[in-house]
This record gives sequence, C-alpha cells and structure tokens, in this order.
Amino acid sequence: MATKGQAITCKAAVAWEPNKPLVIEEVQVAPPQAGEVRIKILFTALCHTDAYTWSGKDPEGLFPCILGHEAAGVVESVGEGVIELQPGDHVIPCYQAECKECKFCKSGKTNLCGKVRVATGAGVMLSDRNSRFSINGKPIYHFMGTSTFSQYTVVHDVSVAKIDPKAPLEKVCLLGCGIPTGLGAVWNTAKVEQGSIVAVFGLGTVGLAVTEGAKAAGASRIIGIDIDSKKFDTAKKFGVTEFINPKDYDKPIQQVIVDLTDGGVDYSFECIGNVSVMRSALECCHKGWGTSVIVGVAASGQEISTRPFQLVTGRVWKGTAFGGFKSRSQVPWLVDKYMKKEIKVDEYISHNLTLAEINKAFDLMHDGVCLRVVLNMHA
Amino acid sequence: MATKGQAITCKAAVAWEPNKPLVIEEVQVAPPQAGEVRIKILFTALCHTDAYTWSGKDPEGLFPCILGHEAAGVVESVGEGVIELQPGDHVIPCYQAECKECKFCKSGKTNLCGKVRVATGAGVMLSDRNSRFSINGKPIYHFMGTSTFSQYTVVHDVSVAKIDPKAPLEKVCLLGCGIPTGLGAVWNTAKVEQGSIVAVFGLGTVGLAVTEGAKAAGASRIIGIDIDSKKFDTAKKFGVTEFINPKDYDKPIQQVIVDLTDGGVDYSFECIGNVSVMRSALECCHKGWGTSVIVGVAASGQEISTRPFQLVTGRVWKGTAFGGFKSRSQVPWLVDKYMKKEIKVDEYISHNLTLAEINKAFDLMHDGVCLRVVLNMHA
Repeated sequence: MATKGQAITCKAAVAWEPNKPLVIEEVQVAPPQAGEVRIKILFTALCHTDAYTWSGKDPEGLFPCILGHEAAGVVESVGEGVIELQPGDHVIPCYQAECKECKFCKSGKTNLCGKVRVATGAGVMLSDRNSRFSINGKPIYHFMGTSTFSQYTVVHDVSVAKIDPKAPLEKVCLLGCGIPTGLGAVWNTAKVEQGSIVAVFGLGTVGLAVTEGAKAAGASRIIGIDIDSKKFDTAKKFGVTEFINPKDYDKPIQQVIVDLTDGGVDYSFECIGNVSVMRSALECCHKGWGTSVIVGVAASGQEISTRPFQLVTGRVWKGTAFGGFKSRSQVPWLVDKYMKKEIKVDEYISHNLTLAEINKAFDLMHDGVCLRVVLNMHA
Repeated sequence: MATKGQAITCKAAVAWEPNKPLVIEEVQVAPPQAGEVRIKILFTALCHTDAYTWSGKDPEGLFPCILGHEAAGVVESVGEGVIELQPGDHVIPCYQAECKECKFCKSGKTNLCGKVRVATGAGVMLSDRNSRFSINGKPIYHFMGTSTFSQYTVVHDVSVAKIDPKAPLEKVCLLGCGIPTGLGAVWNTAKVEQGSIVAVFGLGTVGLAVTEGAKAAGASRIIGIDIDSKKFDTAKKFGVTEFINPKDYDKPIQQVIVDLTDGGVDYSFECIGNVSVMRSALECCHKGWGTSVIVGVAASGQEISTRPFQLVTGRVWKGTAFGGFKSRSQVPWLVDKYMKKEIKVDEYISHNLTLAEINKAFDLMHDGVCLRVVLNMHA
C-alpha cells in the first residue's frame, strides 16, 4: 500500500483530559515497528471500561489518550518480523494479548499473557516505549494496547486475532470484549453444567452474554437481577427465566435468592463492577458448591469482603478477564460460531452511530435500553 | 451389655461457663434413642475449636456443655433402627455427619451433610431436641454433635465412622479432625498437582497435615510461614522446604513470597483462622491460577477482604471443612492409610495426659511446641 512505512494522518477521538468531551482530531499514526501491526479500524463499539478511564476514576488512566478496545478492521501494514499477518487481513484487535511463549501462555491455566502488559499498561509500545500516536509531534497515549477510537491504530502483533474475511466487521467488532467476557465466564471460568441454577447480576451486554452462555450450557433456571426493570424484556430474549429487581424487596437480595432457590444458586456472575453486589453474588450461592464469578470491573481502591465462613462452607470465589478466552486462538473461533449462528451478536447492538457522534454514544451508555453502540469509523 | 437401655453415670469435663476451668463431673448419659449411638470414648484430643468455644468468643456456644470432637472409642449400645453399627465396634465420632441421603450428600460436590446440623448446632439430639447429658436432672448441652470430653457420649448414627478394630485408638483419635482437615484441603479442595509451589500459613497440626498432604501430592516447594520459629524444626520433618517468619521482614508477607517465587505460589493454605493472614494467603498466589484455601476458623463476625482485581486476574478463593472428606466413607480409609504407614499420625502427638488433666492440656495448646494432646479418658 502507498501508506506503508509512512505516517498516516487520520481522524481519532482524543481524550485530552478526564471527564471532558472527546475531541475529534487529526492525528498522526506512525508506521508499525518490529512486532507491530497497523490496522485500519472500520467499526468500534464502546464499553464501560472506556467510560471508566475517561471519567478519571482510573488511577492508571493516562491523558491525553485515544480510548477504545472493542473493534474490528483490516491490516494496513505490518512491521519487521511479523509473519502471521499481512496487509488486507481482517482482524479484531485484542486488549488481552496471547504470545504463546510466556509463562502464562504456556501454563495451560490462564489467558492472561504477560508479554506486552508492561507497555500497554503504560500507554506505549513495547519495543521503544513510545507512542505511535501524535498531534503535531506531541505524543498521545495508547489505551489497553488497542486505541480503537482512531481510524488507524498500531498494536502489538500478539494482540491481533485474524478472522474469517467473510464476517461482517460491523457486527463482529463486539467479539473484542463484552460478548466473549460473558460467554467465557460461563464456559471457561465457571464451567456451568446442564441443569444448573444461575444468577446474573447486571443485565447489560456482559450480563446478557453470561445469560446466553448459561442457556447454551443447559442451565435450568437463569435468574436475572437488575435495578432497571426496563432491561427485563430484552433479557428474556437472551434466556433469563426469572427477574428480580432488588428495589422490590426489603431483604438483602442474597436472602431473596436463597429463599427462591431452596438454598442458593449453583453459579452466580457479577457483571456490574459493584463490590457490594459482588458480595451478594457470592452469598446467594448454595452452600457446599456454589461458585461466584466476578466479571465486572470495580473502581480502583474498592474492596470485596465477606465472612470466611462463606468459603469454609464450600462456596468458591473467582474472577475472569476476557472470559478466560485466549484471544488470538479463540476469537476467530467465536467469529466462526457467529457465522454458524451458534452465538448471537447482532442482538447486542442497539445503536449505530459515526465517529463524529462519539460523545453522544457515551451519553447513550447510561440509558437502560442501550446495549452496544457501534461506531462507523469512516462514515 | 448390662448398661444397654440404662443411663450411664461417668466422668466428663463440663464447661459450666465461658473461660472458666473445665470441671470433672459425674454426668448421667441417657441411652441412645432411635438413630443414635452411645460410645465409650477411650481417647480424645484437643483442638483449637474446643478452645474457641470454651473462650466464650463463639456466639453460638452454649453453656453448660461438654466440649470435644477429636476422639475414638467403642460402641456401647445403639438405638432403634441403627443397623450399620453394633456394640463393640471401634469408631471415630465425626462432627461432620454423612447421611448419604440428603441433597448435600447426594450432590457429589460436598461433604457438608445437612441431616443433623439443626440439632448439633443447637446442642441437642435431632429426634426430640433434648440433650442426653445431665447432672442431677439438669441438662448439659452437646457440642458439635460429638462431646468427646466425656467417658460416654451419645451421637447420631450418621456421625459415626466404623474403623478397623486393629487400629490403635490412642493414635487414630486424631483422624477425627485436624489431620483429615489438612490432608483433605490439599487432596480434595485444592487438588495440588505434582511440581506445585505451596505456601502453608500456620504450622500447627493442621498446617503440618497440609504440608504432609502437599508433599505426598508431589509439591516441589513447600513454604511454611509462622511467627513462632520454634515450629520450624518439626515442620521440616513433615516436608516444609523453606521457612519464613513474617517478623523477619518489613514488607507485607505476600510480597516477600511473590518475590521468592517469581510471581507467587500455585496453592496457599491458611491454617490459623486469622482474617488478615487469609488475605495474605490469597495475595501471595500466582496471577492467572493461584488458588488459596481457607482452612482455619476465624472468630465470629470477622471478615476477609481483598481487591476484586486479585480474583479477576485469575486467583481463586476457596475454603474447606473437614478437608472435604466424607466422614463415614473416608475416615475408615484414612485409618487404613495410617495402618499401611502411608500417612503419619503418631508424629502429631506431643503430649499424653488424662481426662483429669484436661485444663493443663488446654494450657499446653498455647505453647509453640505442643501439637496434639491426647487424653486417656479412663486412666
């Protein structure tokens, strides 16, 4: 391509400082260095983690930065030594890398690759600890190793999942975060079995994906819990069999659920990021075997707590990141499952907007009927 | 036997009120009712749970009561409908019942039988909600469904493990609590694999049994942590490969362990009952897969806490009661393993005393070189 080896000037939504509207700027995107890939982002969705860092509550948030981590696009060019990807490949950039070589990747026990974390956590690229984004020479930080709120981005090659080129990018961009997180929490982390009783706290995109995963796993009852009753109709379509709005009860919600289920649920999932709900999710589990999985991301500094007796009497407390999926190996498999109509994706998209409308998209996220907003990056 | 169907008058150590020396009294032990077994206790050991309830810190502690739950004896008589046991059987009374019929027993997922818990928690027998112990007509509460600090006790038949009559009761009485708890935490709850790095917090009887279990499972490193350095020599004999005294460090002990192990241990076990140590035990686990098992019993009302990020990044927090062993099914198997010299028991006994010396035995428990004190109940 004519752009190979050259900086590309394109549009990106820049977060100059916390909690101020994003600004669409012309940014310069440097060419990929060794082990890096430059991707033309075609579609990106918004996730609450973007909103959390943007809000300024994330002490590790760096500004100015380009947010965004749930997207799909096409490889524009690759840096030296990149052999598994080439220009034109359809890809999903993944905030969770998979190098297949580190202690984590080789363990067979986790998807939490450690290869590039030190750089992505610092908003830069690993090779030279610099950013590839700049505006008139002033560097703009990367975010989560993805920065998909830009028409072009540069990511580490270990963070790129190559997918079926027939897959519609305006849909499968969602397989970069929320849907795999929910499905994987059920399939990989909890390993829900046929006939299980499941509680899902929070019926946003991740909670619905948990619901879908639990339904696919054969759960006999899926209890959805949310303080926004507007979410219940949609949740039913994903598989929720019973709804509980904690506002309708005086008792602690864990007690309500224990009473409804003759002792508690087999599996529970916290999909909000609220530490008090995390406690409820643990304590609504059945004595002897109930397992609770923390899926939501809590604000920095907040802590979970419970009486140790809850664990001594057989409950298990776990968590999940990207649903335990190995990104490069398994995101393509999820795309294939979508193409075979084995998992939903379209149903999670409630709004389609453009990059220019990104601030409106953030506003929509606080609306109970909004699931995922997908931005067309080149409209 | 001549005593069948009659009350038996015998000696027992009665806890009349919290934190006051136990008093050796003549107690009347009523005959076993339907589904009950009267056992002549020959040997009993002391456990910290006895001391905890005796101290008055256990809000569910009932007084006056007869403590004790780690013992061995011989069946004296059985109540109506008891067919699996008969007079003369050698047995270990088990505070964790196994009815083989309830939801818990049938689940295949837990050892926490629910059949008699409502009664044992209230210090009485299930059939009539009365105690079988009295002194001049005044009832004395049962404790943990076992009350082994009496020369005769009455227990539910679902709480009696029948063992090899050749096994020395003065030794295998220890298989009623501490040793199975430690071994089972490793084998049943954590399922430690060959080559694992293990941390054991607290090197008392339970911690040493964890150590022994980990060594048998093929752990490559077993790090023992205790603030009493006197315990280290004994711990080495059980399999501890490295010792850490937290008093020797300024850093949080979890950081010391993470640094020593290139990222943390694969499995950790809290064998103290200290909620702050429970947090350290979780946080010294390796990101991605480290599993921490709470074995110790914390004081009532205390809570554990951590940042949810610890779980989201792959650590698992569990607990165990009686090491996950099914009491009637598996205590006899542990006795057989002891008889085949596959597990230690003798080595955990540091003192042999008599029932009359029980207060001295409690004093010894606070001494760092004391492991288990075994009382001869009829000396």
